[in-house]
Amino acid sequence: MVKVGIVGATGYTGAELVRILSHHPGVEISVVTSESYAGLQYWEVYPALKNKVRIQCQPLDPEKVAGAAEVVFTALPHSKSMACVPLFLELGCKVLDMSADFRLKQKELYEEWYAPHSAPELLEVSAYGLPELHREEITKARLVAVPGCYPTSAILGVAPLAKAGLLGPEPVIVNSASGVTGAGRSLELGSLFCEVNEGMKAYKVAQHRHTPEMEQEISGLAGREVRVTFVPHLLPLSRGILSTIYVGLREPMGEEELLAEYASFYEAEAFVRVLPKGRFPNLRDVRGSNFCDIGLRLDPRSGKLIVLVAIDNLLKGASGQAVQCMNLMMGLPEVEGLGSPPLFL
Amino acid sequence: MVKVGIVGATGYTGAELVRILSHHPGVEISVVTSESYAGLQYWEVYPALKNKVRIQCQPLDPEKVAGAAEVVFTALPHSKSMACVPLFLELGCKVLDMSADFRLKQKELYEEWYAPHSAPELLEVSAYGLPELHREEITKARLVAVPGCYPTSAILGVAPLAKAGLLGPEPVIVNSASGVTGAGRSLELGSLFCEVNEGMKAYKVAQHRHTPEMEQEISGLAGREVRVTFVPHLLPLSRGILSTIYVGLREPMGEEELLAEYASFYEAEAFVRVLPKGRFPNLRDVRGSNFCDIGLRLDPRSGKLIVLVAIDNLLKGASGQAVQCMNLMMGLPEVEGLGSPPLFL
Amino acid sequence: MVKVGIVGATGYTGAELVRILSHHPGVEISVVTSESYAGLQYWEVYPALKNKVRIQCQPLDPEKVAGAAEVVFTALPHSKSMACVPLFLELGCKVLDMSADFRLKQKELYEEWYAPHSAPELLEVSAYGLPELHREEITKARLVAVPGCYPTSAILGVAPLAKAGLLGPEPVIVNSASGVTGAGRSLELGSLFCEVNEGMKAYKVAQHRHTPEMEQEISGLAGREVRVTFVPHLLPLSRGILSTIYVGLREPMGEEELLAEYASFYEAEAFVRVLPKGRFPNLRDVRGSNFCDIGLRLDPRSGKLIVLVAIDNLLKGASGQAVQCMNLMMGLPEVEGLGSPPLFL
Amino acid sequence: MVKVGIVGATGYTGAELVRILSHHPGVEISVVTSESYAGLQYWEVYPALKNKVRIQCQPLDPEKVAGAAEVVFTALPHSKSMACVPLFLELGCKVLDMSADFRLKQKELYEEWYAPHSAPELLEVSAYGLPELHREEITKARLVAVPGCYPTSAILGVAPLAKAGLLGPEPVIVNSASGVTGAGRSLELGSLFCEVNEGMKAYKVAQHRHTPEMEQEISGLAGREVRVTFVPHLLPLSRGILSTIYVGLREPMGEEELLAEYASFYEAEAFVRVLPKGRFPNLRDVRGSNFCDIGLRLDPRSGKLIVLVAIDNLLKGASGQAVQCMNLMMGLPEVEGLGSPPLFL
Repeated sequence: MVKVGIVGATGYTGAELVRILSHHPGVEISVVTSESYAGLQYWEVYPALKNKVRIQCQPLDPEKVAGAAEVVFTALPHSKSMACVPLFLELGCKVLDMSADFRLKQKELYEEWYAPHSAPELLEVSAYGLPELHREEITKARLVAVPGCYPTSAILGVAPLAKAGLLGPEPVIVNSASGVTGAGRSLELGSLFCEVNEGMKAYKVAQHRHTPEMEQEISGLAGREVRVTFVPHLLPLSRGILSTIYVGLREPMGEEELLAEYASFYEAEAFVRVLPKGRFPNLRDVRGSNFCDIGLRLDPRSGKLIVLVAIDNLLKGASGQAVQCMNLMMGLPEVEGLGSPPLFL
Repeated sequence: MVKVGIVGATGYTGAELVRILSHHPGVEISVVTSESYAGLQYWEVYPALKNKVRIQCQPLDPEKVAGAAEVVFTALPHSKSMACVPLFLELGCKVLDMSADFRLKQKELYEEWYAPHSAPELLEVSAYGLPELHREEITKARLVAVPGCYPTSAILGVAPLAKAGLLGPEPVIVNSASGVTGAGRSLELGSLFCEVNEGMKAYKVAQHRHTPEMEQEISGLAGREVRVTFVPHLLPLSRGILSTIYVGLREPMGEEELLAEYASFYEAEAFVRVLPKGRFPNLRDVRGSNFCDIGLRLDPRSGKLIVLVAIDNLLKGASGQAVQCMNLMMGLPEVEGLGSPPLFL
Repeated sequence: MVKVGIVGATGYTGAELVRILSHHPGVEISVVTSESYAGLQYWEVYPALKNKVRIQCQPLDPEKVAGAAEVVFTALPHSKSMACVPLFLELGCKVLDMSADFRLKQKELYEEWYAPHSAPELLEVSAYGLPELHREEITKARLVAVPGCYPTSAILGVAPLAKAGLLGPEPVIVNSASGVTGAGRSLELGSLFCEVNEGMKAYKVAQHRHTPEMEQEISGLAGREVRVTFVPHLLPLSRGILSTIYVGLREPMGEEELLAEYASFYEAEAFVRVLPKGRFPNLRDVRGSNFCDIGLRLDPRSGKLIVLVAIDNLLKGASGQAVQCMNLMMGLPEVEGLGSPPLFL
Repeated sequence: MVKVGIVGATGYTGAELVRILSHHPGVEISVVTSESYAGLQYWEVYPALKNKVRIQCQPLDPEKVAGAAEVVFTALPHSKSMACVPLFLELGCKVLDMSADFRLKQKELYEEWYAPHSAPELLEVSAYGLPELHREEITKARLVAVPGCYPTSAILGVAPLAKAGLLGPEPVIVNSASGVTGAGRSLELGSLFCEVNEGMKAYKVAQHRHTPEMEQEISGLAGREVRVTFVPHLLPLSRGILSTIYVGLREPMGEEELLAEYASFYEAEAFVRVLPKGRFPNLRDVRGSNFCDIGLRLDPRSGKLIVLVAIDNLLKGASGQAVQCMNLMMGLPEVEGLGSPPLFL
């Protein structure tokens, strides 16, 4: 049994980690930290987990965490992560960081979009935790930067094209819509039920911090700089990201040919489902699962390829993906603990 | 591996059976029937289950089903069930019937509330599939009548009182609210999104067919006739039943004493969680799980006990309970395949 | 044009007042106060009202408000209201108070359920703002205590019985469910979208502060002390209260007779709709309107009468009712500004 | 009082017409038809309108309708409209047709996307009912083709650019998301609550019939052929369309300059609100109103302009727009009956 610690366990990402790991056969949750709820039983914070999890929330004490856990998930806001991740590594733990702090390989880029970086030396050694594209690095890594939710959908959506050199020169347009769990559990006016319900809006239009992460990975695959125009929207539902991606092709291709390209690219992947011609993903079909569903449609009138990608932002977009990476890092079967079918109804 | 068949597999109850059983380690789904979708792969009907279930829908041919399966779940409308259940029994299958056809022990009562009964001899031998109250009968039964969703919540909510002789003489008031999956997948105007969304209404007020089922079981426990006034409501959400039950007590008791009574009654039960004083169940805390959460509050001003019960109508209220019963019937661990934690976010 | 002021205009109750009054032909909104948004144009806080309302939020300065407005709506938390209402009265304004501060006639009762009362002399002179029952007092009043949302539904639901002496001796059970606007706009964890969505729970079970208000009014109508057991629930929708009320009758009566009693009691009322036999109210049918819909069902098996009442908690349960009262106080037609049909889709 | 008839009055578009017109001071609803509900009082079909509308549903008899009404709204499926609209015109009525039958000016285009056209001579004389762009034609027209919901949002979103010759040569990308009322009241599996709730999907990707309507109008404004790539999505909410439009500019421009262009273009329009820099529309801010809210963001990294447009699909996207057109046709103030503020909570 792998002993795991979860730092920042009472936010939504942390709670989803606890939920998944409580049912993971190869893992024991040995320590969870929470500043807000220190001293409480975890189920008192999330009563849904009564009888499933019996552990007390502790204030963050890195030495204690490292003493109890071989592998640590840090589910902290950016900047806070980089303050404690180096310590966990020094203390001998493997680390999966859920924040943005180790995702961008260039310190300058990080500092342009986020804040000054206090541990830039780790940017080189961290692996970008998208197993479908970086499986080997992740397997060997001691630090994995778990990708952002939106980037996961966008990168998996265009990877087969980018890798095969099929992307045209124009910017990739990523139009995404996310459920409200993506905003986390903090007390923001915009996250109140009555401010979200029966509404929809775009936010951080073409300014969202996940943009450089998409560009880094897609450019890496394409072997040249690729630009992304990214517009996120907030949906009145709890879980899920649907990305509608508009791509120019380098040269004309048929829809079947493109579908075959995608199917072959993801053939060996347990969590990516390429849908047959004429079918498009629905958020509800991935809810509660680690699946990433992809559908394609070539617009014959404009020549644009439209790629539709659905993930559960808390699973494949965050905690599920983190567990998938942890499985690789700890020598467990990659799909372990992630087999629950979607809760589609 | 137990071979199971699901008859009527593409309604919501059937789909939930397929979803649960696709992840059940002791079971193989060997046949699924659907008149509407015969010939299609199951995942074409429910794309969420792509890669989880590889089986084709067949039209109902009882001999074929019985040839392929040791145990059959019949998820058919009432009256249709009683037409084929006797056949499955004759052909040597064990049967879990999801309809109302074998729940009421008295033929007359069934015919008063439903329709003429064509297999009344089975009413005697069928077990009422509430394991917390009828575990032994279920274990030995060849035919289990899986309880209705509302009755499961009401009966579990008052069983400790009824059994201990604590119920007062006045009728028990059961005020329930259900998600829309309870209405099934049929094309009814009242089930359209825009007819339900942002609304709530009572229906079949004090006339719902689940009333006699509640009365039968509660009376059985109490050893005398108990009357139930039952008012169901429709909620704008997918899954869950919350029952708010108003009970008169035979004699004054304290809240702690009552809580202790409940805790002790359900002590050994894996799926019933009695909440501590001052906590009340929330539908979202049982969603996607087989849990039944119960909270109590004694109104000191009127002396009434208020019992709050939450279940997921598709799990503990239908398909999860059916699998729990099947585990008992087939000698599997009672909780097998039912361990996924609630999807509370 | 009546000049009105709204104190505490950026909470949900205040916003609904602004929304209604922006479209009221006999009224001019001359001052709105908000501590949180002082200095902003009102539409910057609620962009939906761009081009409908052109007024700047001001910090609360009672003299300024009284200088600008003949009639003042105070939409403040309890205790805060009683601190400024006497001042507005002294300065010559008529006042409609949306808080609980002037609803209970007995100081002791208020202090038992709320907090010490600093202006008890006003409890006598304030009118309870339920026009269907206190029209004359309201018309003459200088201070109206606008009823709570839950009490409005409960009191209108049993008034015809109470007034006619038809209530039996047992406590009235009021089982209510409310949309989230009822919780207001404050930043509470329990009001976050993801904490409410796809869930339902009871809260303050048999302990809610609206209980004494119901008892005061129902007892007043009945001419004797009537007890209420009240259980509120939170629904995953924005607007609406559905109350399911269980009443014992003093003597056996028929459903038609009871319906006729209700129809006759509310015959002259513009905002109360008694539904025909077999029909029950739906929240969506009153949404955005000042209607109160009432349906009845007599349970022949227990003799209990079940009364179903639906209101929009922001209209008839708060701001709509306040405007109805203001119309009476200012000599305007009672229905003025309240004629918009429900937004039922 | 203008006497109006509504043909097909019990679908969602018809119901919204009845709702709006029931509160329109210059209009009397003199006849409503419904095949499904003929013989019933309208409020029996939509109980929300009890006491607001007192009229009986009739089967469609064109002569009777024309005898009772000066102006007729036809809310029928395409093809059915063209079968009766010519008759109403002959009988002397003015007609507002809610279907697609008279929107496309070219018979061939209609027949390519829809079905054979039986009244092509009317394509020339019908006015396209978007008052902001065709006010004069509408004022004089006897037949108005009320625009589709998606096209209304797309056309208003790019009109200022198209008219000013600012559109670049690449196709305009229109990414839209709609509430479920857009699917109408027919009994489709895909419109069931549980099939939509907590989900989102694209449909008819780059194949939706509203595409040629967008192209016709935008091309007309631009004075050259403009291509549109249109991807609609279904949202789990009742009302509203949010369109996120990606436009290439003919030449580089600043965001302020573009905002000024839009503000000036819509300066005199009562129902179009151009939001200030940095603000983006939210569906809930237009709900229940005839507003069209527009926000802009220039992506400095790609040079693309992103236009965000929100409308209520039942108001500005259908019935509200129809009433706005009728006001023009009948010499009433354009905004009459459309002044209710949005129901934003």
